[in-house]
Amino acid sequence: MAVTQFNPTCSKTHLHSSQLPFLSRTLPRHRHCTIAPLHRTQQARICCSVAPNEVQVPAVKTSDPKSKPECYGVFCLTYDLRAEEETRSWKKLINIAVSGAAGMIANHLLFKLASGEVFGPDQPIALKLLGSERSIQALEGVAMELEDSLFPLLREVSIGIDPYEVFQDAEWALLIGAKPRGPGMERADLLDINGQIYAAQGRALNAVASRNVKVIVVGNPCNTNALICLKNAPNIPAKNFHALTRLDENRAKCQLALKAGVFYDKVSNVTIWGNHSTTQVPDFLNARIDGLPVKEVVKDQKWLEEEFTEKVQKRGGALIQKWGRSSAASTSVSIVDAIRSLVYSDGNPYGIAEGIVFSMPCRSKGDGDYELVKDVIFDDYLQQRIAKTEAELLAEKRCVAHLTGEGIAVCDLPGDTMLPGEM
Amino acid sequence: MAVTQFNPTCSKTHLHSSQLPFLSRTLPRHRHCTIAPLHRTQQARICCSVAPNEVQVPAVKTSDPKSKPECYGVFCLTYDLRAEEETRSWKKLINIAVSGAAGMIANHLLFKLASGEVFGPDQPIALKLLGSERSIQALEGVAMELEDSLFPLLREVSIGIDPYEVFQDAEWALLIGAKPRGPGMERADLLDINGQIYAAQGRALNAVASRNVKVIVVGNPCNTNALICLKNAPNIPAKNFHALTRLDENRAKCQLALKAGVFYDKVSNVTIWGNHSTTQVPDFLNARIDGLPVKEVVKDQKWLEEEFTEKVQKRGGALIQKWGRSSAASTSVSIVDAIRSLVYSDGNPYGIAEGIVFSMPCRSKGDGDYELVKDVIFDDYLQQRIAKTEAELLAEKRCVAHLTGEGIAVCDLPGDTMLPGEM
Repeated sequence: MAVTQFNPTCSKTHLHSSQLPFLSRTLPRHRHCTIAPLHRTQQARICCSVAPNEVQVPAVKTSDPKSKPECYGVFCLTYDLRAEEETRSWKKLINIAVSGAAGMIANHLLFKLASGEVFGPDQPIALKLLGSERSIQALEGVAMELEDSLFPLLREVSIGIDPYEVFQDAEWALLIGAKPRGPGMERADLLDINGQIYAAQGRALNAVASRNVKVIVVGNPCNTNALICLKNAPNIPAKNFHALTRLDENRAKCQLALKAGVFYDKVSNVTIWGNHSTTQVPDFLNARIDGLPVKEVVKDQKWLEEEFTEKVQKRGGALIQKWGRSSAASTSVSIVDAIRSLVYSDGNPYGIAEGIVFSMPCRSKGDGDYELVKDVIFDDYLQQRIAKTEAELLAEKRCVAHLTGEGIAVCDLPGDTMLPGEM
Repeated sequence: MAVTQFNPTCSKTHLHSSQLPFLSRTLPRHRHCTIAPLHRTQQARICCSVAPNEVQVPAVKTSDPKSKPECYGVFCLTYDLRAEEETRSWKKLINIAVSGAAGMIANHLLFKLASGEVFGPDQPIALKLLGSERSIQALEGVAMELEDSLFPLLREVSIGIDPYEVFQDAEWALLIGAKPRGPGMERADLLDINGQIYAAQGRALNAVASRNVKVIVVGNPCNTNALICLKNAPNIPAKNFHALTRLDENRAKCQLALKAGVFYDKVSNVTIWGNHSTTQVPDFLNARIDGLPVKEVVKDQKWLEEEFTEKVQKRGGALIQKWGRSSAASTSVSIVDAIRSLVYSDGNPYGIAEGIVFSMPCRSKGDGDYELVKDVIFDDYLQQRIAKTEAELLAEKRCVAHLTGEGIAVCDLPGDTMLPGEM
């Protein structure tokens, strides 16, 4: 459920397993938990959207798995990697499914996946691209460009419009595809339209994907889409479903660095709490700059409480205004960050409602597993804001009850909040 | 002058210094040269656009260098890399200037440069982005996305619209910016419009860039743009100017692999000769598949002579039709390939006219220097096609004589050839 991550460099520098960086400065009225030792790994601490408990199994009808989707060009050939000297020591090929594969975020992400920078130089990969009828031609174009790039590790590319075909045996599902909010569209409509897509994809994953598939939901509203997806995939562990708030985290780090006048590798322990929406809570209480609590370095409480959060939330919109498009390149970078630090929770020690996909701080165990960070502090400001984003996600959940097998939807959304970047 | 490259994997496998792969199968009527031993490096053999001799110094007026361009956000801070434990062993920061920085190719390329995958994990970089008045806002957006991506090696980003500012101390200039051919525009008009841009940028490089700046011209018509650029930069070695035909080479490898039913790492020694236009000559005579001459593997002379070249040339257009946009991602990959294998010539042993930027096979010396590959063979088919692309480049050169300090332009272009991808 990696979404945002404590800066790896800083984790290594400032958060070793014998250090107790959080508790030493806990204010008396702060709530805090026991200290979990930090592991010395580059993926030491991540912040993630988690659906803490295994969810109820909804009564969902799944179709039969179908045949594999269409392969493409040179990727239709079968390669015996064991037979070649250069590739004999490589790991077993993994299947990575990507939805919204004809879009701009995928256009950055697919080439990163294929280059080896995400899974390493000895991990051959198969890319399984999911598009729509409208985009199938564009998917062919994407496959052609992947072919023309001569990536040695990319051994299979297939394209299709049926998730039951494309998700077959997927070990990763990176779900980017979603409809943007059109003019005059209510947020409840958006939740329903995209929720339908994610319900269908959840059922498909449940039917045909690897039993331990890791799912990262990028398409917005990503938290509730992830919730719908996992509720429709009862045979896949709920802890394998993640929603991307990592770009928000990266942006928060960047803004803190800028304010403090330091490079961003000095900023650590930044958490995004809650929903990837304007109610998101970038946590400066637990964040550190050069090992010190942010508040000791940035002595401008007004900026922290008012401007900082707004800057993070409005960054996407500001970018669209400048650049004329949404931030595909940096979103793609943040997905890679999330995958690299992807690592697994049930129950949460923060008193946050169960059964929603809520961005929380996680810490990698370094072996593909993860745990929630327990040594965090809260003050009234942080608690209030977390309560607001929690209320929003609970309302979103009631609004999509028809898609999660939990009865009749009631859309009592608390105000018409926006997604980051939405204008 | 790296533009296209013999597949590195294949070079390692098939072209070691003690092997004489080309000559053993030379046909009697083939012209060939002496054998140059191959070096065992990943960048062993590249194919490049070269302006073989140092060119005449044109009488070009250069303005005075101005102050540095505007820095951006967190990149305005100054970092003392020597003072930090993590960065103490890093190399000295290098300045990389990119024109057309608000475009889609740059949007892929900049993130690759910043990530460290091009210059390595211990090479901090400064990106200097050149745009136009129209695109300056978009450049800010690009800088914001670079900031949000938290690349540890990216320490400076500056943006500007004056090449005399942006190219200051540049060690690399990746020149992507160019105007596309509008409806009803004659190729001669296009040559002039883009030629003016590249003449100005050449003068700016001559005035303010590093004396050993490496220049890769991507903006089309790239060969003649590169020629104009170098003619306007008499104080920079002509061998430092390159035009990108590497994407054509990658595409040619891919098509040969597909036809032979092998993965593209089995295809080596592919050269693109001449101009990056529809007269370009993908060389299958010297190319090899699994160490064997292509003609011994693909026993379909008609396909090789008629379909293969067309497939390579029309790939860009086919992609635009499928994908709706030009191939930014794979172009960016090919620029990275070219930079990685960038390596240097004067005079050519093939009898090709001097003083044009002509794609030829090069071989890296492994130390940043390069040489032309001498062990190549020619047959009548290849000779005739090379003569055609040579005639085109010579005509283009006469057409831009006003921009290279060589007198009055005479535009007698041999037919209205297209750029690859132009429709």
